[in-house]
Amino acid sequence: MLVRDLGEFELINRLRPIIQRSDSRTLVGIGDDAAVLDYRRPVVASTDAMVENVHFRSDLIDDVSLGYKALTSSLSDVIAMGAKPYHALVSLFLPESTEVKMCESVYLGLKEAGDEFDVSIVGGDVVKSPLAFAISVTVFGEILGERPLLRSGAEPGDLVFVTGDLGGSGAYLHYRNQSSTVILSPVDEWDLAMRHRRPKPQLAAAEVLASMPDCTSTDDISDGLASELHEIASASQLRIVIDAERIPTLPSLRKYARMAGADPLDFALFGGEDYQIVGTVKSRGAGELLTRLEAVGVRVTMIGRVEEGNPGIDVMRGGKRETLEQRGFDHFRS
Amino acid sequence: MLVRDLGEFELINRLRPIIQRSDSRTLVGIGDDAAVLDYRRPVVASTDAMVENVHFRSDLIDDVSLGYKALTSSLSDVIAMGAKPYHALVSLFLPESTEVKMCESVYLGLKEAGDEFDVSIVGGDVVKSPLAFAISVTVFGEILGERPLLRSGAEPGDLVFVTGDLGGSGAYLHYRNQSSTVILSPVDEWDLAMRHRRPKPQLAAAEVLASMPDCTSTDDISDGLASELHEIASASQLRIVIDAERIPTLPSLRKYARMAGADPLDFALFGGEDYQIVGTVKSRGAGELLTRLEAVGVRVTMIGRVEEGNPGIDVMRGGKRETLEQRGFDHFRS
Repeated sequence: MLVRDLGEFELINRLRPIIQRSDSRTLVGIGDDAAVLDYRRPVVASTDAMVENVHFRSDLIDDVSLGYKALTSSLSDVIAMGAKPYHALVSLFLPESTEVKMCESVYLGLKEAGDEFDVSIVGGDVVKSPLAFAISVTVFGEILGERPLLRSGAEPGDLVFVTGDLGGSGAYLHYRNQSSTVILSPVDEWDLAMRHRRPKPQLAAAEVLASMPDCTSTDDISDGLASELHEIASASQLRIVIDAERIPTLPSLRKYARMAGADPLDFALFGGEDYQIVGTVKSRGAGELLTRLEAVGVRVTMIGRVEEGNPGIDVMRGGKRETLEQRGFDHFRS
Repeated sequence: MLVRDLGEFELINRLRPIIQRSDSRTLVGIGDDAAVLDYRRPVVASTDAMVENVHFRSDLIDDVSLGYKALTSSLSDVIAMGAKPYHALVSLFLPESTEVKMCESVYLGLKEAGDEFDVSIVGGDVVKSPLAFAISVTVFGEILGERPLLRSGAEPGDLVFVTGDLGGSGAYLHYRNQSSTVILSPVDEWDLAMRHRRPKPQLAAAEVLASMPDCTSTDDISDGLASELHEIASASQLRIVIDAERIPTLPSLRKYARMAGADPLDFALFGGEDYQIVGTVKSRGAGELLTRLEAVGVRVTMIGRVEEGNPGIDVMRGGKRETLEQRGFDHFRS
């Protein structure tokens, strides 16, 4: 059945029960003009949109994963501020020929992510869209520590850290778009596909970082490590030097890059959609940061250092130091 | 210049200064992963989207008014909960051939509405959109009184009130779409066009209603009076009887309906986009409500009464009582 045949109100009645959940902070949930949410401390809020054939391709991500990723990628911004997300509003933009089944699958993915991160969807909007499917998610949360973690707090001498591994989503897109005949083993392909389809923002890391006064800045990696490092350098008015060989990547990414004749670092620096946290920590706190993050199961790698100087990024590689261009992913110009 | 030539980051740098404003409740505004907002009481949140050729036509609304209406129509949901909106997040969905000038005009309208209602835009997203322009606005506010004003509180014997006048926007669209030769005087046309382009949500009314325990339910009129009355009746599990001849409409609407051979009540009941408040009040509080709303310059009309019975709406007209069909505006089926 198509959404055109069902109509807006009936569609909402079908989708609502999928994501219905109760939590002590939702005073009024879906069903009135607006939601009423119980916050007693500063609220952290962010919004993100994903558009078909711009931010995702339906042949590279299944509908359940699309819903999952739409929510977790939006949670990532709030988490990187050192906050716990509690609520989300979801707007669907639907071509009238969209299958109702597809909407339900997207909602199943939203529900899965909501349950995993303890986030309730408390409202939204379903609107007709000419030709493209899109989903817009707004997330609210509450600061975990005494202050939000900003991009602007880095200081000379701080070490630069990054959680998890980078470049997997970018490598998967490169693999699926390649015209050559490189074939990955099923498990390597699964490894990279999961990075693209099921990104997991680093809530456990944020809980630790928010409680550490020595953590001086953070940013989530949505547009690629290079772009986020430039944001920290620019907001903090400092220079950052990173050691290219220390940037953490998956073995499957390195294998693919070797076979495809690509530079694995390109995926890590410019691929984007990693939803890991990059940040800075005073050097005296680096040991504590490593210990405490590893204690909660978060892999963390020191990849560079903050210096005085013109805002920008230098990369050390093979004994050479070179300036890293500011190249973020720009959908309008790609 | 087109947004394709300027690119996402440069476009954001151009738009941001237009809506930049400071207020004591914005702890971190635009420019980091998320905004940090100072709320100490429950937060009221709602989101709304407008899509080109679905919710608006660029030949019927200018770009500045489009920005103004995108914000004020979204504020309306939060205001109808008895809350004062303070912050908004705005996402633009832009075809790459959109003129930068058009985006700037939309932002000027957002700024105008933000200044008028003391609301700061603290973040958002700009994304590429295949074929249609769209704007999605999420609004946060804080409850004005002791509790939110819901749809579900109406009780038998309550009187039904409505603020302002209804149907102007619907009549304007009907006028501009008509194939007949009815021509409105310039001032009548302006009257109706303003209802379509520059809706003003009833913040002053909400401030009064939120402080009146005798006000038992409210809803904002976005989909037409009939649809909103059905929502109150359904949420409160009661029957509502309205007096058709008491529904307030503009003289210009009545003149147009007479000339076009249309029923003026159709515009008021089914037109939508009025952004007035319909609600219920205990009869003992109706006098106070009239006095206090008129004291703050809000016109208010008693149009009906709440009764026991099957949830639904009856309309009295010319001495007859008839059941009102549940007909909301459904973009998917129109």
